[in-house]
Amino acid sequence: MSFNIPSIIESKRDGEVLTDTRINFIVEQIATKKIHPVQLGAFLMAVYLKGMDKAETISLTKAMIRHGETLEWPQDWKHLVVDKHSTGGVGDKVSLPLAPVLAALGLKVPMISGRGLGFTGGTLDKLESIPGFNVNLTTSQICDAVEKVGCCIVGQTKEIVPADKEMYAARDVTATVSCIPLIVGSIIGKKAAEHPTALVLDVKCGSATFMKNEKDARELAQWLANTANGLGIATTAVLTKMDEPIGMMIGNSVEVIESIQCLQGKAPKDLEELICTQGGNLLASKGKAATPEEGYNMVQQSLTNGKALEKFHEMLLAQHVAPNVAKTLCDPTTDLWKVLPIEKLQMELTAESDGLVLSINALAIANVLTELGAGRLKPTDKVNHGVGMVLKTRKGGYLTKGQVWAVLYHAEALDENHFDALKGALKIEPGNGEKPIESRIIDIIRPN
Amino acid sequence: MSFNIPSIIESKRDGEVLTDTRINFIVEQIATKKIHPVQLGAFLMAVYLKGMDKAETISLTKAMIRHGETLEWPQDWKHLVVDKHSTGGVGDKVSLPLAPVLAALGLKVPMISGRGLGFTGGTLDKLESIPGFNVNLTTSQICDAVEKVGCCIVGQTKEIVPADKEMYAARDVTATVSCIPLIVGSIIGKKAAEHPTALVLDVKCGSATFMKNEKDARELAQWLANTANGLGIATTAVLTKMDEPIGMMIGNSVEVIESIQCLQGKAPKDLEELICTQGGNLLASKGKAATPEEGYNMVQQSLTNGKALEKFHEMLLAQHVAPNVAKTLCDPTTDLWKVLPIEKLQMELTAESDGLVLSINALAIANVLTELGAGRLKPTDKVNHGVGMVLKTRKGGYLTKGQVWAVLYHAEALDENHFDALKGALKIEPGNGEKPIESRIIDIIRPN
Repeated sequence: MSFNIPSIIESKRDGEVLTDTRINFIVEQIATKKIHPVQLGAFLMAVYLKGMDKAETISLTKAMIRHGETLEWPQDWKHLVVDKHSTGGVGDKVSLPLAPVLAALGLKVPMISGRGLGFTGGTLDKLESIPGFNVNLTTSQICDAVEKVGCCIVGQTKEIVPADKEMYAARDVTATVSCIPLIVGSIIGKKAAEHPTALVLDVKCGSATFMKNEKDARELAQWLANTANGLGIATTAVLTKMDEPIGMMIGNSVEVIESIQCLQGKAPKDLEELICTQGGNLLASKGKAATPEEGYNMVQQSLTNGKALEKFHEMLLAQHVAPNVAKTLCDPTTDLWKVLPIEKLQMELTAESDGLVLSINALAIANVLTELGAGRLKPTDKVNHGVGMVLKTRKGGYLTKGQVWAVLYHAEALDENHFDALKGALKIEPGNGEKPIESRIIDIIRPN
Repeated sequence: MSFNIPSIIESKRDGEVLTDTRINFIVEQIATKKIHPVQLGAFLMAVYLKGMDKAETISLTKAMIRHGETLEWPQDWKHLVVDKHSTGGVGDKVSLPLAPVLAALGLKVPMISGRGLGFTGGTLDKLESIPGFNVNLTTSQICDAVEKVGCCIVGQTKEIVPADKEMYAARDVTATVSCIPLIVGSIIGKKAAEHPTALVLDVKCGSATFMKNEKDARELAQWLANTANGLGIATTAVLTKMDEPIGMMIGNSVEVIESIQCLQGKAPKDLEELICTQGGNLLASKGKAATPEEGYNMVQQSLTNGKALEKFHEMLLAQHVAPNVAKTLCDPTTDLWKVLPIEKLQMELTAESDGLVLSINALAIANVLTELGAGRLKPTDKVNHGVGMVLKTRKGGYLTKGQVWAVLYHAEALDENHFDALKGALKIEPGNGEKPIESRIIDIIRPN
């Protein structure tokens, strides 16, 4: 049993199961950049093609955590720390209302989030639409905020899981992204390094996320749940549909607006379902609710009784938003469109025929919005918070010819490709009346 | 059909057949070092695990030649240019007598050879034991030598097949060496860039070479022969056993001594068989002999009638060896042990019991010799030409207890591991008399 890199690559190449110690060795070499990139590429491809079993995946995840910094919480509330993760979709603003909801219900939520890349939006980018909002808190500021408020939503402070940074950049250019053990190591490694005691995962499935089919998404969800659970984190994975945008708004400022509306009890039904399901499962995991269903109702109540909005207000202050701005944002009489940056150019998209909305292509819309500045094509791009879209209908809604189905807020002139993509994003089928709103929840996956 | 690197890696990852143009693109990126090493590693592993078919292997080889320099020969003898290649063994000095033999028989042999690494010796290192021997001829000096003498043995002059340099260094550290399409591309690419019209390949098989079993070696031989033939080079592959050392001498100076003895008609039988078989096949390929068997006899005659020795003498002069040294070396009355550098320390290895030699472990001997300086552990190591071993017996020979079976010439003191390895290299079985010398030839493989 040798510990040099070529011999470990050779074993995985031949489909052997790697021991804990060998996985630990190669991850250390990756984290410290001692492995030659040509070896990293070969190792990733060998793992892609030969796989890793559950024990190896847990070893990989543990090793990724071990070779980097981790976050520690005070003794008196570390047992209450929870977090959530979504595999990424379009219009997915669940984190913004969910963190204050959970804080209002007595949990501790030091939510460490990321930025957007490609068609997937980023929670930090959305929050930075709010004037003065600071996502760069120090570890002690995070502790303070969670101690006093119960939640905060921040960027990464330390060199958490440096191996992931190396592996992710490599996977991106070597056709080794869609590999379950590597995805699991990356997601659970980063989450576990924050030391939550419970975790809820939103594993998306559909045309507007990277897992296109249900079988693959279900398998990923099960592996994620098992691996996190194997690390001692009580974990539930919610398998959800990701074809149409979530809620009615897509962009940065507009998603903050929709999030505040949620906290004012005015959530679109599909968004509400996602918030309540994820929150409910976390509450049940921590014994704050007897069942996920009871937790669901507690979240729903917290969205309507103003308690979560109050926590959001406190969070804004803890994250350096000026008191008058924070107060205005949380005041139900405020016209949020005047407080947050929104681009002045507006374009109305209209239906070309009468009928029922068969589908709204979230990926097509997100790609146009990204090109117009709402997202990043590469990590160094700047985001325009004011670019966004507001939908005026939903899947199953009824439209008459010429009726506005969406409004685009933008800064640059659109080109022909943008027009075509947006026009093609709406599919109408003949019919009358309206169809009921479909549930986005495909299944709830628990560790097995 | 996309031409970016990740999409080509992805196709091979999924087991697709790569088109000519895509293979050409990725090889160009490798040759020009535009591919990121992490991508090269992933590509090599994908090829290792998913393979390449015969058409892809020919495309790979052609692309490797295309993106680099090639050698061109004068119109009046370019049709006579031939070469040989061995996949590498222990005591394999066939090139040294074979080049002058072929020149004596009217062929043109601009033999471009390499240096040793690991347990495999290098033809250039061996020749450099000869005082003044210059392996670094320019292209025009090579042309001159081949024009006048008929042969030379030199190092690479131009940037022939730069993709191979990149790929070989990468394969060495990523457990992707033993992959037939990559081996074929590397060997045939380099040979074909020298524009020979006929080629003989010695594909070794056994414990002291990288192809350990006959099935794999046979498959490699067939692919090599087919690919070279597909490039218009008349090719024969000789499949040979590589467990015991070839001939009686292993090292640098000692192998030159044994080579000169061959040219004086005193070749050990196994070495003679290899020289005659390879030469005979080349002569038959070029129509200089009616059959490989006739060619075999022509080579044998050339070794005994002094014609090949004369060509060797001319080659020494063409490669800058001083006339008096060249003359001394080729004079049958010379004690070669006094002309070439040989280390002064001698150690006799003796038999521990009476019996027949069951085996002489070439790999074990070569590893000790390499550590003692006869070879390189890494490409930058210097070689000690005077370190070597002379065998006093052969497989099937009879020994009595205490009889010397080998003499080691060395400069450094041996450690315990060396002693153990050398002692363990000889296996004796009970028995009397002697067994006949076994043929090393397993099969002759022709393109199919």
